[in-house]
Amino acid sequence: MSEKFLPVQGYKGTRDFFPDEMRLRNWFFSRMREVAESFGYEEMGGPLLESFDVFAAKSGEEIVNEQIYNFYDKSNRRVAIRPEMTPTVARMLASRMEEVRFPIRWFSIADFMRYERPQKGRLREFWQLNMDILGVQDISSDLEMILLIVELMKAFGADESMFKVRVNHRGFFNDVISDLIGASGSEVGIISKAVDKRLKIPRNKYEDWLKESGLDSEKIALLDNVFALSFEDICKRLSVDSEGAKTLKELFGLIEECGLGEYCVFDFSIVRGFDYYTGTVFEVYDLDPENRRALFGGGRYDNLVGLFKKNEVSGIGFGLGDVTFENFLKAHNLIPKKIHKKDTVFVAIFDDVEVKNYLQVCGELRSAGLKVSLYLSKGDKLKKQLQYAEKMEYAVAVILGADELANNRIVIKDLLSREQSVLLRSEYTAKLKSMLGG
Amino acid sequence: MSEKFLPVQGYKGTRDFFPDEMRLRNWFFSRMREVAESFGYEEMGGPLLESFDVFAAKSGEEIVNEQIYNFYDKSNRRVAIRPEMTPTVARMLASRMEEVRFPIRWFSIADFMRYERPQKGRLREFWQLNMDILGVQDISSDLEMILLIVELMKAFGADESMFKVRVNHRGFFNDVISDLIGASGSEVGIISKAVDKRLKIPRNKYEDWLKESGLDSEKIALLDNVFALSFEDICKRLSVDSEGAKTLKELFGLIEECGLGEYCVFDFSIVRGFDYYTGTVFEVYDLDPENRRALFGGGRYDNLVGLFKKNEVSGIGFGLGDVTFENFLKAHNLIPKKIHKKDTVFVAIFDDVEVKNYLQVCGELRSAGLKVSLYLSKGDKLKKQLQYAEKMEYAVAVILGADELANNRIVIKDLLSREQSVLLRSEYTAKLKSMLGG
Repeated sequence: MSEKFLPVQGYKGTRDFFPDEMRLRNWFFSRMREVAESFGYEEMGGPLLESFDVFAAKSGEEIVNEQIYNFYDKSNRRVAIRPEMTPTVARMLASRMEEVRFPIRWFSIADFMRYERPQKGRLREFWQLNMDILGVQDISSDLEMILLIVELMKAFGADESMFKVRVNHRGFFNDVISDLIGASGSEVGIISKAVDKRLKIPRNKYEDWLKESGLDSEKIALLDNVFALSFEDICKRLSVDSEGAKTLKELFGLIEECGLGEYCVFDFSIVRGFDYYTGTVFEVYDLDPENRRALFGGGRYDNLVGLFKKNEVSGIGFGLGDVTFENFLKAHNLIPKKIHKKDTVFVAIFDDVEVKNYLQVCGELRSAGLKVSLYLSKGDKLKKQLQYAEKMEYAVAVILGADELANNRIVIKDLLSREQSVLLRSEYTAKLKSMLGG
Repeated sequence: MSEKFLPVQGYKGTRDFFPDEMRLRNWFFSRMREVAESFGYEEMGGPLLESFDVFAAKSGEEIVNEQIYNFYDKSNRRVAIRPEMTPTVARMLASRMEEVRFPIRWFSIADFMRYERPQKGRLREFWQLNMDILGVQDISSDLEMILLIVELMKAFGADESMFKVRVNHRGFFNDVISDLIGASGSEVGIISKAVDKRLKIPRNKYEDWLKESGLDSEKIALLDNVFALSFEDICKRLSVDSEGAKTLKELFGLIEECGLGEYCVFDFSIVRGFDYYTGTVFEVYDLDPENRRALFGGGRYDNLVGLFKKNEVSGIGFGLGDVTFENFLKAHNLIPKKIHKKDTVFVAIFDDVEVKNYLQVCGELRSAGLKVSLYLSKGDKLKKQLQYAEKMEYAVAVILGADELANNRIVIKDLLSREQSVLLRSEYTAKLKSMLGG
């Protein structure tokens, strides 16, 4: 009889988090949680599945047509695995409009799925930190987002040589495109999508895209020109009064005033993929020449709850994915070795000592706040047990044989230095605690 | 023009976690994480989607046929949203069989979906703590599972009056059914499913189920008899040598020896729904007369990686769902008030003070380890701002107007007692820290 086995690989574009990888993910999301809470953000969470309609209207064509995992449930409801958080935030906010007071500061840490061709920095399943300020249009919320991003990056040891926040404004972008390039309203939408992909697709594809949207070669050259200009120079050429330009000017003034200037730069090519952005948009770029790419980004969206309610609510926020962020941390050597270190006490077992004695030792150590792992396979020699403990990278082994038990002693073995010491039963807990800094 | 809005309710059987609910979920899973780590368990995680086949073989008919969310992806792969964790654990373990050393202790905290009719304690999306010991058959691992469960419950303040661990053994169950009831191998499987549902379905349905599997009224009466017997009395009547009986006897001996007797009881009706269980099985029952039901359970499964590899690996573990557990905590009043208390400082703003001054105050407080929320809507009166701060349940407000700024002073207002005090800029951080116990 030939046996057929299922493949051990997980579904394409997903990851298995073994303890080492999980420790890393937990470490950086915990750090982010601390920063978020220090700014008064409150954690929230939404469902894995939403009605397909919740995403269909606002998430942007590429995501909706190509990337959303969606299907019909047994009652023929069309549902989707969330590809992003904002529509859920909007729905939840809409359901509590009568009760909430603004500003609301929410963050979430959740996993998402998008049907993409897996590649560096891009997988089908990813985890994301989402942070939003809801219900405030004031520019101080745009400023807070920038400050928050800078503090978040600094919390991981990143400095101004490693990243840059590139800032633009959707309203300003639209004004410039229609005023300087002479594009109509519908053309502007298509141009913004082409611009968003400009550096990710071949030049000829980019030009074809623009031509399809009605731009001739002359206008494409004009557009190229704009990318080469500074914010001030673009403003000088504008013949219309642009609210977006005013906002950007004010925002950059505040950024300078608050000492964030070295982290930020204006970049006309930042538009962001989602259709719902209407105001300030920003992307955080990795400055490593090997890895020059957007790490994460976000922006201001108006009329957030408009799909669900008549109310108008403005929000500003960003989503930070774990895959690119982890690459960034690794590339810049920002992951401390400490998070890989085990702080667990290993307790070896002997056949002639009753298990209740070991459970007592484990209980004493746990009560002292230590992590304790008891060996479980009876009959294995001490040597094999200690090899296991070293393989597991445990810090210390506790050895309690029949002799020690009779003499009220306990043996402690440092698994790095391999030094052993014999201690009184009354002493070993304190000794281990000091060894492990517990 | 009539506008049509999307519903604000989420997908049926899922929950929105607003900050209050999220804080609760985070609180109890953090507590569980601490207990798990104190026993040397390492956190791992798997993907949201798996190939449908991974569940089809082992998860049990009801789940596979009726409850798994599954669909075909764009490449026509049949995938499923995970309804449980064990098959993923098995697949991941199989992929590293050459590298790992046993025992492995893994835990995970993840969300799952099952297509069920939403009811009390049962939703379509739920979160679950999963804990497993892998690669050890020794009875000390069965004992550790029981101890772990008891310590987990005690970590939430639950005592022996609130819950009971009901223990049985699949091998013992099978031996008894075939020996005392005279059922064949295939009948035993069906009987075990009927017994698992015995107290959840009407008596006549239960009897019909048994009759379909070949039991006549006499045998059904015999089976009823067995449920009324003690472990010892069942053993006395057995005419076969049951390995399962030996294991149970030894396990209960250890349970008594280790002082866990008051938390545990033998219960022949515990079989568990999953097909993969082969040895010890257990369920934790709520003893509240209003809520007598299984909170969570698990057991031993042999041949864990058999779907993926030729190796034989035995495991024992359990899955604890958040919905029933939260009901338990609420019913027994085990949720401390503290987790609802905000520990955030609110900073009010005035139009005639530049925002950089407020960012400086916020920065100082954050550097001192405090959580700080800055008001953002310029132009709002102080009264409105303080009403907002009270509504948000912030503890303290910091007030810095143009006068204070000029005099190097700062005003602190306790939002509970409404007492105000004026402090020097050099003093307020320490004062706030002591007020909030930060």
